[in-house]
Amino acid sequence: MAAFGWIDEQAELRRRAGLVRTLKPRPADSPLLDLASNDYLGLARHPEVTEGAARAARTWGGGSTGSRLVTGTTELHGELERELAGFCGFEAALVFSSGYAANLAAVTALAPHGSLIVSDSGNHASLIDGCRLARGTTQVVAHADPDAVRKALHTHDGPAVAVSDTVFSVDGDAAPLAELAAACREHGAGLVVDDAHGLGVLGDGGRGAPQASGLAGAEDVVVTLTLSKSLGSQGGAVLGPARVIGHLVNAARTFIFDTGLAPAAAGAALAALRLLRREPERAARARAVADELYTRLTAVGLTAVRPDAAVVSVRAPSPEGAVRWAADCRAAGLAVGCFRPPSVPDGVSRLRLTARADLSGEQLERAVRVIGETRP
Amino acid sequence: MAAFGWIDEQAELRRRAGLVRTLKPRPADSPLLDLASNDYLGLARHPEVTEGAARAARTWGGGSTGSRLVTGTTELHGELERELAGFCGFEAALVFSSGYAANLAAVTALAPHGSLIVSDSGNHASLIDGCRLARGTTQVVAHADPDAVRKALHTHDGPAVAVSDTVFSVDGDAAPLAELAAACREHGAGLVVDDAHGLGVLGDGGRGAPQASGLAGAEDVVVTLTLSKSLGSQGGAVLGPARVIGHLVNAARTFIFDTGLAPAAAGAALAALRLLRREPERAARARAVADELYTRLTAVGLTAVRPDAAVVSVRAPSPEGAVRWAADCRAAGLAVGCFRPPSVPDGVSRLRLTARADLSGEQLERAVRVIGETRP
Repeated sequence: MAAFGWIDEQAELRRRAGLVRTLKPRPADSPLLDLASNDYLGLARHPEVTEGAARAARTWGGGSTGSRLVTGTTELHGELERELAGFCGFEAALVFSSGYAANLAAVTALAPHGSLIVSDSGNHASLIDGCRLARGTTQVVAHADPDAVRKALHTHDGPAVAVSDTVFSVDGDAAPLAELAAACREHGAGLVVDDAHGLGVLGDGGRGAPQASGLAGAEDVVVTLTLSKSLGSQGGAVLGPARVIGHLVNAARTFIFDTGLAPAAAGAALAALRLLRREPERAARARAVADELYTRLTAVGLTAVRPDAAVVSVRAPSPEGAVRWAADCRAAGLAVGCFRPPSVPDGVSRLRLTARADLSGEQLERAVRVIGETRP
Repeated sequence: MAAFGWIDEQAELRRRAGLVRTLKPRPADSPLLDLASNDYLGLARHPEVTEGAARAARTWGGGSTGSRLVTGTTELHGELERELAGFCGFEAALVFSSGYAANLAAVTALAPHGSLIVSDSGNHASLIDGCRLARGTTQVVAHADPDAVRKALHTHDGPAVAVSDTVFSVDGDAAPLAELAAACREHGAGLVVDDAHGLGVLGDGGRGAPQASGLAGAEDVVVTLTLSKSLGSQGGAVLGPARVIGHLVNAARTFIFDTGLAPAAAGAALAALRLLRREPERAARARAVADELYTRLTAVGLTAVRPDAAVVSVRAPSPEGAVRWAADCRAAGLAVGCFRPPSVPDGVSRLRLTARADLSGEQLERAVRVIGETRP
């Protein structure tokens, strides 16, 4: 068989199952009402954020030009790291080119040979890949279940970490962080949590789920973040005790062997962070929009998950039904996310809606009307 | 023991071995002569490139706002992908948030369960991590050895790929691409090559090592790239037959579950690509600077590897010697890279010099004088 010939067979299987994904490039002036992006605070196109990007590119260049350990660390990176750590209440921070890279770094560097990783079954792909790359052994446990974590840790002697999203991206439900931390402390284990969907939405003024759960600055907690959701930019970060951050600088392969984050992305994230500090009400507004969206959707008889942050997940009858539903919404001027196998852990397809802080009451009403009218 | 207590022991071991890494944030107006970055063509701070970043941020926002499969694909991404593919002579391209992510995607998606990956022992960390994440089985073979690849492929029945850097980042030596492709073809295997250090430097007008080796557009060759070296931006790409790119869209986890590349990074890379098309002599100039650097360094009695692209590697006597040498260069106004364990495959420490296309004869002379005078 010719090289890559097997790809055609897989493509044919996907086609028959109705699971083919294609890219739909969007124009800059899309007329669609956006409930699909992760731009929770509506900051990606805020002039302060885009000017932060533009100014940083002009001052520092189009790229960071090298690994963070060689030429890829500018004073701008240092500034962003200090302000991120300070905002979320941790001792130190380290910025990466993506949240994916930050998760690979945190999990692999904190789970050495002989250690145990206890991983929630609903964790994001990047945490799962971190577990697969780590030298430690992974035990997957039931979703959002501190007792399952406790039991798993009980079986192990030596370094251990529990790993969890703070807000799960598919259903938008929150992890029981305080209980997870308690379970870890009983066993002297560390807790690594991905606050990608919590930063900017949960906690005082958007300081994130760990702060909301009283875990900010804890010696045994490490937080990973993304700069590409509430902060409207690109990149990721790891926050934690200075010794953990120093360890990542020396041991995390996706830090050492990657080019540093582009100055424009660092500048945009820094501008968004300062804006959020100045306008803390944006976080509460995102949560209120999510609650209203949930209330209105269930009032028209749809099955949705009560949102713990700014993601509202609506059940669809099938992968094909979900795709058709999303396409019908699109035709009616509304962009919604459509999650289906293999991107969902339980095989259930959904529409995934983002409760952006900048949605108006009129826009919310329109969104709910369209979703209700197009239901399969 | 407290959570993460084991980190302190590792930090102490690193301290004793003289292997502690720290970050040195650089100012925007650093007076250092830069031979350390990967800005091979000197484009990272070119006004067309930084304006490309600024304009894209203003037009499209600070971030792409979602996965490439949801809201993260703009028309700008499509434009960059078409022009990258066209420039390098491949049917299609797919852009990622980093070269690291592109390599993880290409290797994992093209090496399914039951397949064989034949991996060069000198490959970059991101290719190695791709092999570790892939469901296929990896066989590591001797460096730059097509016969070893041939033998490894001979042991396997079923889908197989050989994976190699085109230019190895530590010593700057090139892989024997045409011979590797021949070995793969004998067995119906695919060839995946990372042209991070070849794009912009090798091939006609910087079209890269695959083009230089007559492999552009080959049905059985997949190329990964970075936008963060010669193109002075951030991000990565995979180039190849349309069916391979379509497969990645559907199967590559670091594509599906990552936020799309920030518009500013796409805009900067696109501006740099157009500049390179217009000024193809930049590629030849980078190669000429590398040759001159090598000739001058060996003329003063230093041991260097003859450069195949724009990286010149100079042997250092020890990790401590390399660190001191780089620090002494820095004190004398010259930034050079310092590679040492565990970032080098063979345990040998080196200074790593970048032959930037925009270095003047006077700057080259100064660099060689400083390196010679500070040798340990």
